[in-house]
Amino acid sequence: MATSNEMLETILKETPPSDHPINYSFLAPNMKGLHSAMDILKSTSHSTSKHDAPKIEFSVFAAATESFTQKNLNCDIKTSMERFRPVVQSAKDAGYRVRGYISVVLGCPFEGYDVDPHRVAEIATELLEMGADEISLGDTTGMGTAPRTQELLRVMQKSGVRSEDIAMHFHDTFGMALVNTAISLEHGIRAFDSSVGGLGGCPYSPGATGNVATEDMIYFLESLGMETGLDLDAVADTGDWITKEVGKPNSSSVGRAIMGRRNLAM
Amino acid sequence: MATSNEMLETILKETPPSDHPINYSFLAPNMKGLHSAMDILKSTSHSTSKHDAPKIEFSVFAAATESFTQKNLNCDIKTSMERFRPVVQSAKDAGYRVRGYISVVLGCPFEGYDVDPHRVAEIATELLEMGADEISLGDTTGMGTAPRTQELLRVMQKSGVRSEDIAMHFHDTFGMALVNTAISLEHGIRAFDSSVGGLGGCPYSPGATGNVATEDMIYFLESLGMETGLDLDAVADTGDWITKEVGKPNSSSVGRAIMGRRNLAM
Repeated sequence: MATSNEMLETILKETPPSDHPINYSFLAPNMKGLHSAMDILKSTSHSTSKHDAPKIEFSVFAAATESFTQKNLNCDIKTSMERFRPVVQSAKDAGYRVRGYISVVLGCPFEGYDVDPHRVAEIATELLEMGADEISLGDTTGMGTAPRTQELLRVMQKSGVRSEDIAMHFHDTFGMALVNTAISLEHGIRAFDSSVGGLGGCPYSPGATGNVATEDMIYFLESLGMETGLDLDAVADTGDWITKEVGKPNSSSVGRAIMGRRNLAM
Repeated sequence: MATSNEMLETILKETPPSDHPINYSFLAPNMKGLHSAMDILKSTSHSTSKHDAPKIEFSVFAAATESFTQKNLNCDIKTSMERFRPVVQSAKDAGYRVRGYISVVLGCPFEGYDVDPHRVAEIATELLEMGADEISLGDTTGMGTAPRTQELLRVMQKSGVRSEDIAMHFHDTFGMALVNTAISLEHGIRAFDSSVGGLGGCPYSPGATGNVATEDMIYFLESLGMETGLDLDAVADTGDWITKEVGKPNSSSVGRAIMGRRNLAM
């Protein structure tokens, strides 16, 4: 948590006030991590009291399979949920928004394609009951297909989880992210995780590339007539810059196309 | 046509007989090109008479906008159609299959997004009336979006063009190819152009990347429970090999993911 807390401190101190406050989601794996982060938040409360200061939320990371939970958290799913309960409740008590992530909902590097959607719905329901504001369903491996995304969302719906409490978190490893986004939109879901330039990955999911690129997501949603409130050109600039900074390929088709056209126009 | 005819000659002489005869589509821009290609076909008829020899079809390339037609064929659409008529008819008379391509159906590098779907339907109908067996609708620039793909296919349907006479030809420049494929599948279309490793491009469409990758297309169609008759692993191998041979990045997500996993397993 040292690095994570240093980042939190830096963000709170150095993010310039803005008309569009940025949301930061901070991983709180256990009570120790939560308390340590909340101490920092308290000590810098002079800056966070401004209504345009960055907004902090806390997040817990569950997973849909026993194998992935063992590898990632070194315990079984039941134990992980017992550990998350006081974290979620304390963060909510302190007035923070809490996000519950569930990894490998559409395919697990250890258990394959057959992840039980009913198990996902159970975990989601339990996290929501603890007090989580939103559940992010992670296709960590990018193994999600259109029919299985549809089946997962049907089961979520039947289990009483509302579409407005769900965010989808797709990885574009097999190029399925936007197709699965289309399925999710049909199910009324309007929150999607993505990363600029398609950065990211998962240490336990060998071969998996990063999250679907924010640029591609914006382009797709706007092509459907939806408003994202984001400036695609500015995001493409950021993707171009950050992928060069970290020395990774820009895996956004839209980002590369925008940059390509701009270079040709120069 | 020299290079094209040399290729034709090589293919006819050197393609080994196979249980799965390969189809080759040859561009016949005018009568001179057609006659020259047909002479080669006649002179090597001893090899093409085998029922397992490569199958040759001829193709003509129309475009949906006046500007693109001028740049590509140096004439207007009307003149281009007059030139195609004897080519299509002679190829049909000689017993060959003919494919009519229409470029820039969902966006033109010179005229932008507003390509008239009724104009596309007119050109398609005219090519079919000449005798073309199939029309390939090309989103040459990758500017096609889901709603405009839907609108184009609705207009095609209303104009009496049958889904089984249409092939879709998507470029993945903005990552929309598979979403637009999904729309096309809903309209009953079952023929899709693609290229291994996503190779290709268009000299008149600056910044446009290649066709959607065959690997991504196979993965997507099979994820929907459709049979392609293709071996995805073998196609991924070919994509890996050919992109290295020509020194271009492998732009297939699926191809890269399969190769990545295979390297990790070694």
